[in-house]
Amino acid sequence: MSNFLVLQSDFGLDDGAVAAMRGVAYTVNPGLEISDLTHGIEPYNIFEGSYRLLQTVQYWPKGTVFVSVVDPGVGSERRSIVAKLRTGQYIVTPDNGTLTHVDHFLGIEEVRVINEIKNRLPHSEESHTFHGRDVYVYNAAKIATDEDYFYQLEELIAKENLEFIELDEPYIDDEGAVRGMIDILDIRFGSLWTNIPSSLLREAGIKPNDTVEIIIRKDGVKQYHNQILFGTSFADVPRGEVIGYVNSLINFGVAINQNNFSKVYGIGTGRAWTIEVRKK
Amino acid sequence: MSNFLVLQSDFGLDDGAVAAMRGVAYTVNPGLEISDLTHGIEPYNIFEGSYRLLQTVQYWPKGTVFVSVVDPGVGSERRSIVAKLRTGQYIVTPDNGTLTHVDHFLGIEEVRVINEIKNRLPHSEESHTFHGRDVYVYNAAKIATDEDYFYQLEELIAKENLEFIELDEPYIDDEGAVRGMIDILDIRFGSLWTNIPSSLLREAGIKPNDTVEIIIRKDGVKQYHNQILFGTSFADVPRGEVIGYVNSLINFGVAINQNNFSKVYGIGTGRAWTIEVRKK
Amino acid sequence: MSNFLVLQSDFGLDDGAVAAMRGVAYTVNPGLEISDLTHGIEPYNIFEGSYRLLQTVQYWPKGTVFVSVVDPGVGSERRSIVAKLRTGQYIVTPDNGTLTHVDHFLGIEEVRVINEIKNRLPHSEESHTFHGRDVYVYNAAKIATDEDYFYQLEELIAKENLEFIELDEPYIDDEGAVRGMIDILDIRFGSLWTNIPSSLLREAGIKPNDTVEIIIRKDGVKQYHNQILFGTSFADVPRGEVIGYVNSLINFGVAINQNNFSKVYGIGTGRAWTIEVRKK
Repeated sequence: MSNFLVLQSDFGLDDGAVAAMRGVAYTVNPGLEISDLTHGIEPYNIFEGSYRLLQTVQYWPKGTVFVSVVDPGVGSERRSIVAKLRTGQYIVTPDNGTLTHVDHFLGIEEVRVINEIKNRLPHSEESHTFHGRDVYVYNAAKIATDEDYFYQLEELIAKENLEFIELDEPYIDDEGAVRGMIDILDIRFGSLWTNIPSSLLREAGIKPNDTVEIIIRKDGVKQYHNQILFGTSFADVPRGEVIGYVNSLINFGVAINQNNFSKVYGIGTGRAWTIEVRKK
Repeated sequence: MSNFLVLQSDFGLDDGAVAAMRGVAYTVNPGLEISDLTHGIEPYNIFEGSYRLLQTVQYWPKGTVFVSVVDPGVGSERRSIVAKLRTGQYIVTPDNGTLTHVDHFLGIEEVRVINEIKNRLPHSEESHTFHGRDVYVYNAAKIATDEDYFYQLEELIAKENLEFIELDEPYIDDEGAVRGMIDILDIRFGSLWTNIPSSLLREAGIKPNDTVEIIIRKDGVKQYHNQILFGTSFADVPRGEVIGYVNSLINFGVAINQNNFSKVYGIGTGRAWTIEVRKK
Repeated sequence: MSNFLVLQSDFGLDDGAVAAMRGVAYTVNPGLEISDLTHGIEPYNIFEGSYRLLQTVQYWPKGTVFVSVVDPGVGSERRSIVAKLRTGQYIVTPDNGTLTHVDHFLGIEEVRVINEIKNRLPHSEESHTFHGRDVYVYNAAKIATDEDYFYQLEELIAKENLEFIELDEPYIDDEGAVRGMIDILDIRFGSLWTNIPSSLLREAGIKPNDTVEIIIRKDGVKQYHNQILFGTSFADVPRGEVIGYVNSLINFGVAINQNNFSKVYGIGTGRAWTIEVRKK
């Protein structure tokens, strides 16, 4: 067994929620190795939770158990589930779309349902608003201790019955431009991370060191339009200049060398924010 | 031995203070398992430090040693102490009120004093402003290594001689309304956590699914007045609506489903902020 | 082997970057003990990264491997290096000045270069902007597993060939005043940490409980001028009063008891901010 448990939530680190979860896990098994993915997910932002799992899960050993608690529907009828990924890791989460990116890009092997009444922290019956502590980390600790626990969860459900977020697919349009959306930010640096894989740029004939034209729109309205270098890393342009690059997930990104693109140009993320890239 | 060491402070995570404490602990015993409770306590806010211990301590294995450094009086005559709780955990802290909630709700079994001159990190004599590193975590690591170290601390003191914060007790008034205060926030979500236990609501005849009238006052002046559902979880009301509920410490809470009550209505915490709940 | 790995960066904790690094390290060796120094270094601020290493490294066991990724030049020609300190710890970092303080105050024993093409996370060749994950933590995990890996890194370089930040030395001027700069803040509390060691104050005849005159200038222009107590700890003055003291690195500091000097008086850090201290 790997014994690795990795926690993600929108709880922040400024109160006792995460520490209570850790205590529950260590009480189940003092030998666990617990890490945090992040607890800085924007409150209720399921898309962001889904994306951060994709960004990290694959770098962890097979058998690692992730807990992701972005759970606006806590206490409602939404199911509590565990997915085993094709890459060998587990994710324990509410069934609310959090598995969208890992399903799309890594693949889910099997999903089981946690019975919230039977499989919960003993003596937590009166508590209905902190399933992270009472249900998710408790069950996750058991799986991280022994994978058989996963297979003993009774209800197996078909992937088709899960909640997923609708994802927009990037594509090459009739004029040869690559079109996608801005998924998320490299938060501290304000670089834009798009949903356009480097392979799609290649397919469109865009190669490193090409100059590309990029247009960023919000709800169809142009917000930023420029010709930039499609470089390899930030230092390929002088400090303060814009650069296109392949990010650490091998998707197209846009940054300012040693500054914050998102702040400087007021660019956001999500479905409303689209990007068009064409060779110049 | 549990070997668990859990650190709390008002130091934040943006400089090297917490990492220096971890290094000292691992130097005492490389086999310790160190976690953070939170380092986001508001600077000098002893009440918050006391509350966060109550929120978490009981979820950790017996023998776990907590270090809490909210220490405006560092270097003064205030004592450095270790409390063993009835629930089996230890807390190492300045004697400044930090033990108030755990004493009141969990119970302290025994308290001993750390001799700051004799029992400190070797070669740290010139340093007088970082007892977190030089005194607290150093001694805590020794207790987490071997509980006997606690019993070898020479000075045993009576609980009555400790510093405590005055706590206001919730009660049912002559007209049958439950009256309490707003202790703290569920920070990321802005939900109000009161000092009213769910048992006191029951005693006042308030049951889940009742409609209740709540009045929130600051220094006696009304700030918020409404009739709300006393529900089970946030999803019992539509998004954006206010709900009363039982929180994860089994006390009465007030939230907006998927929004931030504290921000939307400008409600704060502490003794000045009282709440009155009555059945409608 | 110590097996201790300690991570520092300017990545923040709000996305998946740090968790991806941890996963890579545990994949190299599931038995590592990983901690964070801080990930709150101001983006691109190499001086701060250098200082935080000095503040913490010496409190960790010999053999501990630190990773510091403040790396504005990622993907450029700047070298990736590992330094072994005289105090027995290792630091894996870009060669950009991050080693300045540890070299000056603790001493570097030996420095080797990481071949970024040969010694990197397998299958990470397409990624050029996240050497923290693909190069630094990967190599650091190998050193933390087996110190021999350090000695097998082929290229040994002379310390003289490293990038260093120019440091201003504190001194006693012709009139007996001690002159230095404000290195950094005790962030949460806003206390000023200067580069003046307590030994230099002693040399200038300044003793605890003396009253001292301090002048703080920015680019030579006076910003703050007062006579204050050179005390031992904050509680030596009433709440709200200014005090000079010896901080936890045994340098001169300036604070307000239970308030934030930096915010109250608008004082910053860095070479432009100088301080003069004289006995009154």
